[in-house]
Amino acid sequence: MITIPLDTQSATPMYIQIYEYIRGEILNASLLAGEKLPSSRSLAANLQVSRSTVDTAYEQLVAEGYIEAKEKRGFFVNPITHIQQFPISGDDSRKSQKTKKQEKPLRFDFNPDAIDTVHFPYSVWKSLGKNQLDVPGNFLSGDHQGDIPLRQAIADYLRGSRGVRCMPEQIIIGAGLAHLLQMLCVLFERQATIAMEDPGYRSARQVLVSSGYDIIDIPLRDHALDVEILTRSSADICYVTPSHQFPLGSVMPIARRQELLNWAAQGENRYIIEDDHDSEFRYKGKPIPALQSLDSTGKVIYIGTFSKAISPAIRMGYMVLPPHLMKRYQEKCGSYACPVSRIEQAILADFIKLGYFEKHLNRMRKIYKGKHDCILEKLHQYFPEGLVDISGDNAGLYVLLCYHGPLAEEEIEKRSKKAGIELRSLRGYYSSLPAGYCPTYLLGFANLSEEKIDEGIRCLAEQVFLAPESCHSESVSEVP
Amino acid sequence: MITIPLDTQSATPMYIQIYEYIRGEILNASLLAGEKLPSSRSLAANLQVSRSTVDTAYEQLVAEGYIEAKEKRGFFVNPITHIQQFPISGDDSRKSQKTKKQEKPLRFDFNPDAIDTVHFPYSVWKSLGKNQLDVPGNFLSGDHQGDIPLRQAIADYLRGSRGVRCMPEQIIIGAGLAHLLQMLCVLFERQATIAMEDPGYRSARQVLVSSGYDIIDIPLRDHALDVEILTRSSADICYVTPSHQFPLGSVMPIARRQELLNWAAQGENRYIIEDDHDSEFRYKGKPIPALQSLDSTGKVIYIGTFSKAISPAIRMGYMVLPPHLMKRYQEKCGSYACPVSRIEQAILADFIKLGYFEKHLNRMRKIYKGKHDCILEKLHQYFPEGLVDISGDNAGLYVLLCYHGPLAEEEIEKRSKKAGIELRSLRGYYSSLPAGYCPTYLLGFANLSEEKIDEGIRCLAEQVFLAPESCHSESVSEVP
Repeated sequence: MITIPLDTQSATPMYIQIYEYIRGEILNASLLAGEKLPSSRSLAANLQVSRSTVDTAYEQLVAEGYIEAKEKRGFFVNPITHIQQFPISGDDSRKSQKTKKQEKPLRFDFNPDAIDTVHFPYSVWKSLGKNQLDVPGNFLSGDHQGDIPLRQAIADYLRGSRGVRCMPEQIIIGAGLAHLLQMLCVLFERQATIAMEDPGYRSARQVLVSSGYDIIDIPLRDHALDVEILTRSSADICYVTPSHQFPLGSVMPIARRQELLNWAAQGENRYIIEDDHDSEFRYKGKPIPALQSLDSTGKVIYIGTFSKAISPAIRMGYMVLPPHLMKRYQEKCGSYACPVSRIEQAILADFIKLGYFEKHLNRMRKIYKGKHDCILEKLHQYFPEGLVDISGDNAGLYVLLCYHGPLAEEEIEKRSKKAGIELRSLRGYYSSLPAGYCPTYLLGFANLSEEKIDEGIRCLAEQVFLAPESCHSESVSEVP
Repeated sequence: MITIPLDTQSATPMYIQIYEYIRGEILNASLLAGEKLPSSRSLAANLQVSRSTVDTAYEQLVAEGYIEAKEKRGFFVNPITHIQQFPISGDDSRKSQKTKKQEKPLRFDFNPDAIDTVHFPYSVWKSLGKNQLDVPGNFLSGDHQGDIPLRQAIADYLRGSRGVRCMPEQIIIGAGLAHLLQMLCVLFERQATIAMEDPGYRSARQVLVSSGYDIIDIPLRDHALDVEILTRSSADICYVTPSHQFPLGSVMPIARRQELLNWAAQGENRYIIEDDHDSEFRYKGKPIPALQSLDSTGKVIYIGTFSKAISPAIRMGYMVLPPHLMKRYQEKCGSYACPVSRIEQAILADFIKLGYFEKHLNRMRKIYKGKHDCILEKLHQYFPEGLVDISGDNAGLYVLLCYHGPLAEEEIEKRSKKAGIELRSLRGYYSSLPAGYCPTYLLGFANLSEEKIDEGIRCLAEQVFLAPESCHSESVSEVP
């Protein structure tokens, strides 16, 4: 007979106490395979509990396979093997998170990925959100490509603003760029080779590499992908940012666009992935139409997100597939559910359809233009002529500062760190640095006020680029 | 001199009309490469518009690369190549969507994937949602693994309800099963082979195949994965549903669990993916603890979603990675953004933390148990003994009906279609059908009322399985 120390005061039901005790005895080999358990009647009597309590415990042990019921013979312990034990060192990730937090706070964050977080019409979004929370249909399963009203709204927006010609049926809603690229990878041949701009978008490159693709880095010629080099390569797919080259900020000229489309037209499995990131923000002239708008051969996959135009917290993007890739998508991904919550899809659809999105873009274009003009003005004001070149202006949310002076990059980085300035180097976007590369930095202005831009550029000039060189600068700075 | 037909009444600004006209002339080769455009001054005079209007149009053409400004010489047309034209047959997908809609409406939908959509506490979700829409921080970028409060809430829930031991640092929030599996694929070696249960979860299989993996289908022995066959195979990774085998509904016994853990412990790159789908719903005894709770070797990747417990419209799931896979995740996926909207993460975190989730699960367990008991009762009532076997009961949202009578499967499917009954065959979940397979059907009960279950099972018995065979049944039914 088993004696089980039952705690009648415990919140744990009796049957679970019995179940856990016997389970423990089996796992620590106090009860061995083949041993017969007491009948539920006798165990119940012994423990002074009802027989159904013991029955319930035994049923659970049977359900999980610890014991077996043999008809008319009773309950027997099942054979169980033992498992090798390895130490788990689970604290590593926690530690690394702690060290991150100890970093010095930034005084000026020129992060080129930032957006303005002050001027979003939160109240509109909230009120649309509150409406959509009242729609019970939003709690049911949606369309696996994304809901029709949102796809219709995006198709209309793309036609009007980007010249992209597509039907809602060609649009797939995804959860940001990485997710959309992962989905695309499923559609391509596994042995496909993907060409990317060098310098280019490293996060996209990482997703494609992680998905197992070989990448060929194609250098730029006159600030746009060199299609001659692409043509000589073995690439099947080409990833480009034609409206606003990332990170150089240049526009791919029409002749190069047509060369690229011709390259794609010459191979059955050739495709162009057009990443139309931050194309919404041009401060001179009208927006540059998308490459997709020139494509009559069904070779361009157009990808956009709302990370820059609305917020990176809204995890939504979309891709427009050419018709015959749509067929492959239906075959291969027909059972994937759309990863975006239906309520957020409905809010965004309303936000676009009711004109709030266009209004917001127009407003932000004006605000960003103010910041853009301000940073250019301040760069001219605080830097002497000839020491730096500015490029990548007139569009996007950052400008490029190319430095022609004597300071080494390490020194520049050391000084800017000391000054509390986040300064993103262009170097990190290259796979192979071109001959004659000058230290170049991306200066994001989107989330800085004009006052902060003034102060920050001044600090950048005085404390980083123009400060006198001092071999003791480090030891001096240690004394407060 | 170019003559441009300007429409002064049009809403399109003059500069865009000029830009579009010249662009058209270049694209249709009326203006050829090398041709000089009129000076902006003379064109402005000719068109009777201001010079700045023409300047703006020219700037746009320069920005897009159609024309080039040569210093002191004026504007010249750039060379542009022509593109091969292919016909686009873009209407295919639209057509197929139309035909889908013409299907006859179902009278009884025994879809095993359905959930009860009536009893979700929408008002609670809504009010939490409205609170979170007021938090401005929810519009900023979040943690790439998912926000800490949600990961903490999930870790607490998993510890209490599933015996899963993990820190929030090991949890990755994703957008449903397909997305989580795609993410996992990035972590595995490209040449890994994945073992899956046969019969098993076909959608998961499709995601893994589409991601380029070889799949080995492992038959079940006594309704659980045969670890002996797994051991003899070349598989590195094993995908299992131990708490509630999908689709058979059986529990993997403890001995088999330990064999499986031992298999994994014997190879450095071996892993077990534990898909703990609908484990929340057991109607007898307490929930079966997760396989992960037995794992002391860091080999089990635990995956769960909220599709069954809350709604498939909430695109949220999570995986718990063993510590050293976490390191690989940080290296390979460190720059992927979490695909779930921050507001929904915050709502769900509150929903769990404030106890609503547990309350909802307890309530649904009671409601589903009622429907489960009802479908069993009705099956016994309307089907004669010996003709059918019921299995997969006591857990999940469907039961299995195995048919031993003379009707062929085609006939059963024809009849159920005619009767307006959605009947999912077990056949489709097998890679290779076992010897002696009897026609078996998954009867989902989650989204049917008890009245509808009564009516539906009766209809299933009378009009499908027990109806007299008639060789003219089809032609007769055509006459209304």
